[in-house]
Amino acid sequence: MAQRNRGYFEGKGLLVLNLVSSPGSGKTALLEKTIARLKGKTNIYVIEGDQQTLNDANRIKEAGAPVVQINTGNGCHLDADMVNKAVKRLEIKTDGILMIENVGNLVCPALFDLGEAQRVVIISVTEGDDKPLKYPTMFETSDVCVINKTDLLPYVDFDVKKTREYALRVNPRLKFFELSVKTEQGMDAWMEWLLKAWQIEE
Amino acid sequence: MAQRNRGYFEGKGLLVLNLVSSPGSGKTALLEKTIARLKGKTNIYVIEGDQQTLNDANRIKEAGAPVVQINTGNGCHLDADMVNKAVKRLEIKTDGILMIENVGNLVCPALFDLGEAQRVVIISVTEGDDKPLKYPTMFETSDVCVINKTDLLPYVDFDVKKTREYALRVNPRLKFFELSVKTEQGMDAWMEWLLKAWQIEE
Repeated sequence: MAQRNRGYFEGKGLLVLNLVSSPGSGKTALLEKTIARLKGKTNIYVIEGDQQTLNDANRIKEAGAPVVQINTGNGCHLDADMVNKAVKRLEIKTDGILMIENVGNLVCPALFDLGEAQRVVIISVTEGDDKPLKYPTMFETSDVCVINKTDLLPYVDFDVKKTREYALRVNPRLKFFELSVKTEQGMDAWMEWLLKAWQIEE
Repeated sequence: MAQRNRGYFEGKGLLVLNLVSSPGSGKTALLEKTIARLKGKTNIYVIEGDQQTLNDANRIKEAGAPVVQINTGNGCHLDADMVNKAVKRLEIKTDGILMIENVGNLVCPALFDLGEAQRVVIISVTEGDDKPLKYPTMFETSDVCVINKTDLLPYVDFDVKKTREYALRVNPRLKFFELSVKTEQGMDAWMEWLLKAWQIEE
């Protein structure tokens, strides 16, 4: 089914990213800022995964992107089947970028291919720098690692260099962005990469 | 098997707590400080759950408590069977408190009873105040909620009152502690509750 999604995305001309992280690392906030910055550049669509609530979908709608919310109930991850159903409900008529925000969980979503082109793992500097070693599967299976909340670096014990080193130990091809969604410091590089990835896909 | 564990813990005279949270909420740090403060008051034992590494077990050993590490590999939670095997390896000879630090995951461990007397969910103020609504099962099945990293409150958008209100909406009998493991502000109330819980068990 992940392969089928991959074909569908290709058919529709979509660059698809699967955003994974612990709860509260800033996935939705990153999407909000990304949507704002993409205005006039390309279309963006969002699938939101959460155990409960429409909170995130409402935030994304407010930010101006078409969005479908999946509630997994007791489920701990999105799977390709859920995504296949959700993407149809988006009724996508143009090419563009589709962002899938997975359930906040640094463990289980690592094992489920949704058919995405790139998997983006987000960690925040408040989570401790040993996360790539303690939850290696997620870092192993991701293409990009966003280190978020860098504005809080002065107030926490978090060694960015160490984190990168640990993450590269489990996945040497991982690409990094250090940024603060809140202050938008570092957002330029993220947007540049995203638009380039989109152009390649196109 | 959870019931069997419950019987074993009773037989050994152990108060058993199951600590659950997202990755990086400060479970291990809370344990380190708790172990230090329990010195001379009662015995404490620890079972550590992580996908990989012995990092946490090493930190606990350093803090002075007997500890066994469980590595779950791709597994996203501890189960009663793993705990049953691990507790035997601790060769517990005295009564006291047994702390089980679950895999960092706000979703799956909610569904697995380990035989604990109390489930303690830890969230940090950097994670956003809507977590109890988005991950309700964990808050529903917990007895105690520790709101950690209160020293970072001036730097983040987190409404403690709202969080408590959301958590109480899914679980009206939840008991709260607001504290900073780093500055130890609020640790006194936590320790007082823990020792009282231990005396009741005893």
